[in-house]
Amino acid sequence: MGSDSDLNKMSEAAQILDELGIENEVLVLSAHRTPEETTDFAQNAKKRGLKVIIAGAGGAAALPGTIAALTTLPVIGVPIKSKSLEGLDSLLSITQMPPGVPVATVGIDSAQNAGLLAAIIIGAQDLKVDKKVEDYKKSLQQKVIKKNKQLVKVGWAKYIKEVSGK
Amino acid sequence: MGSDSDLNKMSEAAQILDELGIENEVLVLSAHRTPEETTDFAQNAKKRGLKVIIAGAGGAAALPGTIAALTTLPVIGVPIKSKSLEGLDSLLSITQMPPGVPVATVGIDSAQNAGLLAAIIIGAQDLKVDKKVEDYKKSLQQKVIKKNKQLVKVGWAKYIKEVSGK
Amino acid sequence: MGSDSDLNKMSEAAQILDELGIENEVLVLSAHRTPEETTDFAQNAKKRGLKVIIAGAGGAAALPGTIAALTTLPVIGVPIKSKSLEGLDSLLSITQMPPGVPVATVGIDSAQNAGLLAAIIIGAQDLKVDKKVEDYKKSLQQKVIKKNKQLVKVGWAKYIKEVSGK
Amino acid sequence: MGSDSDLNKMSEAAQILDELGIENEVLVLSAHRTPEETTDFAQNAKKRGLKVIIAGAGGAAALPGTIAALTTLPVIGVPIKSKSLEGLDSLLSITQMPPGVPVATVGIDSAQNAGLLAAIIIGAQDLKVDKKVEDYKKSLQQKVIKKNKQLVKVGWAKYIKEVSGK
Amino acid sequence: MGSDSDLNKMSEAAQILDELGIENEVLVLSAHRTPEETTDFAQNAKKRGLKVIIAGAGGAAALPGTIAALTTLPVIGVPIKSKSLEGLDSLLSITQMPPGVPVATVGIDSAQNAGLLAAIIIGAQDLKVDKKVEDYKKSLQQKVIKKNKQLVKVGWAKYIKEVSGK
Amino acid sequence: MGSDSDLNKMSEAAQILDELGIENEVLVLSAHRTPEETTDFAQNAKKRGLKVIIAGAGGAAALPGTIAALTTLPVIGVPIKSKSLEGLDSLLSITQMPPGVPVATVGIDSAQNAGLLAAIIIGAQDLKVDKKVEDYKKSLQQKVIKKNKQLVKVGWAKYIKEVSGK
Amino acid sequence: MGSDSDLNKMSEAAQILDELGIENEVLVLSAHRTPEETTDFAQNAKKRGLKVIIAGAGGAAALPGTIAALTTLPVIGVPIKSKSLEGLDSLLSITQMPPGVPVATVGIDSAQNAGLLAAIIIGAQDLKVDKKVEDYKKSLQQKVIKKNKQLVKVGWAKYIKEVSGK
Amino acid sequence: MGSDSDLNKMSEAAQILDELGIENEVLVLSAHRTPEETTDFAQNAKKRGLKVIIAGAGGAAALPGTIAALTTLPVIGVPIKSKSLEGLDSLLSITQMPPGVPVATVGIDSAQNAGLLAAIIIGAQDLKVDKKVEDYKKSLQQKVIKKNKQLVKVGWAKYIKEVSGK
Repeated sequence: MGSDSDLNKMSEAAQILDELGIENEVLVLSAHRTPEETTDFAQNAKKRGLKVIIAGAGGAAALPGTIAALTTLPVIGVPIKSKSLEGLDSLLSITQMPPGVPVATVGIDSAQNAGLLAAIIIGAQDLKVDKKVEDYKKSLQQKVIKKNKQLVKVGWAKYIKEVSGK
Repeated sequence: MGSDSDLNKMSEAAQILDELGIENEVLVLSAHRTPEETTDFAQNAKKRGLKVIIAGAGGAAALPGTIAALTTLPVIGVPIKSKSLEGLDSLLSITQMPPGVPVATVGIDSAQNAGLLAAIIIGAQDLKVDKKVEDYKKSLQQKVIKKNKQLVKVGWAKYIKEVSGK
Repeated sequence: MGSDSDLNKMSEAAQILDELGIENEVLVLSAHRTPEETTDFAQNAKKRGLKVIIAGAGGAAALPGTIAALTTLPVIGVPIKSKSLEGLDSLLSITQMPPGVPVATVGIDSAQNAGLLAAIIIGAQDLKVDKKVEDYKKSLQQKVIKKNKQLVKVGWAKYIKEVSGK
Repeated sequence: MGSDSDLNKMSEAAQILDELGIENEVLVLSAHRTPEETTDFAQNAKKRGLKVIIAGAGGAAALPGTIAALTTLPVIGVPIKSKSLEGLDSLLSITQMPPGVPVATVGIDSAQNAGLLAAIIIGAQDLKVDKKVEDYKKSLQQKVIKKNKQLVKVGWAKYIKEVSGK
Repeated sequence: MGSDSDLNKMSEAAQILDELGIENEVLVLSAHRTPEETTDFAQNAKKRGLKVIIAGAGGAAALPGTIAALTTLPVIGVPIKSKSLEGLDSLLSITQMPPGVPVATVGIDSAQNAGLLAAIIIGAQDLKVDKKVEDYKKSLQQKVIKKNKQLVKVGWAKYIKEVSGK
Repeated sequence: MGSDSDLNKMSEAAQILDELGIENEVLVLSAHRTPEETTDFAQNAKKRGLKVIIAGAGGAAALPGTIAALTTLPVIGVPIKSKSLEGLDSLLSITQMPPGVPVATVGIDSAQNAGLLAAIIIGAQDLKVDKKVEDYKKSLQQKVIKKNKQLVKVGWAKYIKEVSGK
Repeated sequence: MGSDSDLNKMSEAAQILDELGIENEVLVLSAHRTPEETTDFAQNAKKRGLKVIIAGAGGAAALPGTIAALTTLPVIGVPIKSKSLEGLDSLLSITQMPPGVPVATVGIDSAQNAGLLAAIIIGAQDLKVDKKVEDYKKSLQQKVIKKNKQLVKVGWAKYIKEVSGK
Repeated sequence: MGSDSDLNKMSEAAQILDELGIENEVLVLSAHRTPEETTDFAQNAKKRGLKVIIAGAGGAAALPGTIAALTTLPVIGVPIKSKSLEGLDSLLSITQMPPGVPVATVGIDSAQNAGLLAAIIIGAQDLKVDKKVEDYKKSLQQKVIKKNKQLVKVGWAKYIKEVSGK
């Protein structure tokens, strides 16, 4: 990520990767403040055995594109909601890449989805990971189904009270 | 893709995949007009041996998300520029997915980048593809370097004439 | 609705329907997390005797369109304000449907208006409901008229105090 | 519609209604230039036996809301793309209605969908219309399926030539 | 104004008019909820001797345009910031009027400026009002000049403390 | 206006003023390129007997506000559609004025409405002008009514042909 | 700056200039409320020996352009986030200047960057300042590197606790 | 500039610099396609004696920020209007830089202003350049004054004919 102020959000990516049993490392690298370190990281990522890179940044969010320019590993971009403009600047700075340098962009502040997308990409080579992703998606489905059942059972008025009572 | 009117743009994805030697199929499937066919496609894609799905759609662009909901294959979304709103509707309909169902979104009308991103993801398992992606990126780099040399050599005024004279 | 986190807002639709004496059910169904359940619901809605479907969702809000694709019942879409972008993403994901699959979209977070629109549609077949809608609209009119009278009577400075004093 | 300059777009609504065998009338009524006529129309629509009103307007598009304020018939709003701002002004002026006065908004310039939505609402009372809507949606589905078959058969390169050759 | 929830903001217009000695009345009239009352008001405003009308509304803010359609008095529109979209909907619904029905729009939530603009328009006929407007603008100028002097005198660090200490 | 490239659009204001018999002058004055001339104009406008100032500008459209800062005459701002951003920049640069310096903003490129608004403001002091404005608005109303009659008489298909045949 | 309410933000520019040993003055000057004072300031800035002007303003933010129109000193514009529209109005009012009158715009609320940009411009003539800017940028780099080391050392979970524990 | 397709626009910067007698070089360097070349250029720019860098790019426009990260020379950013989104993406990607790495952004497609801003910055050290900038600004002023005189002399109707007749 481009700044440690994004760590609260970006750690959701690490959490889901941990949950799915995928080894990961979390770094602060700024395309604009530590350009040499970012270049080194990107150029060596593949040799070091990394499989996917998740890059989160806000505002004029150059980090994902800067890394994608220097590696052929898949790069997932997470637009971090900035202090103004509701994250629109981050989103456009990450998606609108020129031909030849794609960044796989997820939604604004969607670090969790970035982690899951990384797992999906790794799962293409690794049946165990693929299985875990499937189980994870099923568990989400089950949660919604269970919530729906409870909602139908108790009615919405009581359901709201139950949820807010937690 | 969601409509055959998007084929001119989406065929750029097929072209780059062909160029990189990656087998691909091109289909028209609409989340809104052929929902059953879309569901069938998404549920069977993995069994049929597909590795990555590229889904392009415009406006209320549900296709990438609808497919991502039904498979654990990586799904790449291409927001197609719509007749109004400059493609902003397509972009937001594709990126802003809920937790658990990521879509790897590229830029508006960036089918070429979608194809390249698919190759990058496949390249993670297939060294031959990875090598081709590297070569492709190097060829882009060489093109820019060559253009820059020519520009420095002849000056911008003459360069503009040369390019427009082509 | 697509998530039980939208229930606080969406329950306003149920409230107005209750108030107008129209039977209704409230469900959590996610186009992206429970696609099969959503498909089942949409395909059986008409047979089960439903007259109108109200679907609320936020972000890449596919639920209203996904349901509209699978039924010929009127589908009313409620764009839920998302955590970023002020609900613009939800609004565009719901309104900008392709030809052949309309969604009757109301304003951002306007679940109450969605309920009222459902009543208006039902009222076209059911004179009792139509009468209740008319009475409801008249009561709103009376409320504004009464407020205006009070405002003119006491003056704005005192009126502000009265209202904030409540 | 608010201006006869919108007729080219709005006539798509009349066309689909004709196609589905639903009687309809096409009028120019401006909320801002013929307010009395608009009021008369809205107040008498129900008595005259109208079932649904489709109102299209651009810019500060008040027509749909003005009519919805004066009737309990369902009012469908069509935001017409304006000369600047890509229709965003029209869309927001029509969707963002206050509580009590819903407008069933379709996409920018989507008069065809407005016509279809009117048919869907009427179909709730009229089985013949409902049947026709179902057939229409199936015909759209068949068109996409047929296009997909042709695309798969001849390949995208030849398909593009066939389509552009038409 | 369209709703008494806008009174806190709109009362700033009344305040400045009071301050400038211009008689004024404050009413709640909704283009959508009390259309008849709004029509009556607009059609009789001139006869009743009103000189300028200030209309504030939010969302699909039809009130200013609805009134402007029914009178040849100058109508000043105040876009009220809505719960979503930061007031952009209100602004566009008020400014983007069709030819023949102008609304003099001020900034989002700028009721104070609306009051001042009304005074400026009245001042064109009434030298006493014109003089008061001039004095008011001069007093604003003096306030800024005085603040600047104090800022230069004490330095920004101390100035911030002074201001926050108030 | 800020540039003679805006004259084609801004001349619509002069045209309507001519049509309503209101004397007017058309000038090119740039807040950014001829600031002294603009200041002179604004400071002397009242003494010279001007009643209303219409200022049109595009992009970072400072002209209306710059003039409004230097006079107590009513200033009407016309946001000119710029080469990019669809006129949104012009609109926001003109409407969003600070307290104390209102600009009466009309829609993007709505010079005709600016002229009419000037006439309305002048009409408040001048019964002859007021009468002409009323007649003008009635003529617009009659045009719409006449168009509507023709449309109902010949049907929309024939009407489109008639209009496009002109 | 255009208002003393912007001082909290704009003082960051003064702070970084102080930190880099560059003399500076902080003034409140409003393009709209104190136009004469602003004109005087801009016309005399060069003679008084100023090297760069930083102008911050919000909404219809005319201050930077107004000053740039009257001097050939470099003018840096800081768009201040306004109460509505997230600062988009300020940004567009400052960047979108006509040919001949550039404003060097920094990001929304980025007064610190404005100060640093001023130092960079001054550093082009003054090696001591240039050296200080280099040192400052290196110190930022070192901070990020140090944070990254700590993050890698203790892990993200502990790091979050350390940071929030401060 | 990031691509030779931007040369038509960016050459306006070279033209004004030539006109003002300032030596300049024009290069194609892509932050995303030739990252090493861009890094080399930025790191050596100061040693090579460059005084200011103008960087133009479109979409996810990282070039200006990438260069600004690697040098303490002033970097001027030109947002190039992209194929979709009207240049908003380019503008936000260039302005919204993080603390420590300012880019002096000009308007969308405003390469001419970028050239002039570069001259203004150089003029701070070089009285001859400063004089030329002053003369240039005066010549612009004279052009507007001359146009205004002609417009007043011949009237707007004839002026339009003269201009379009050229």
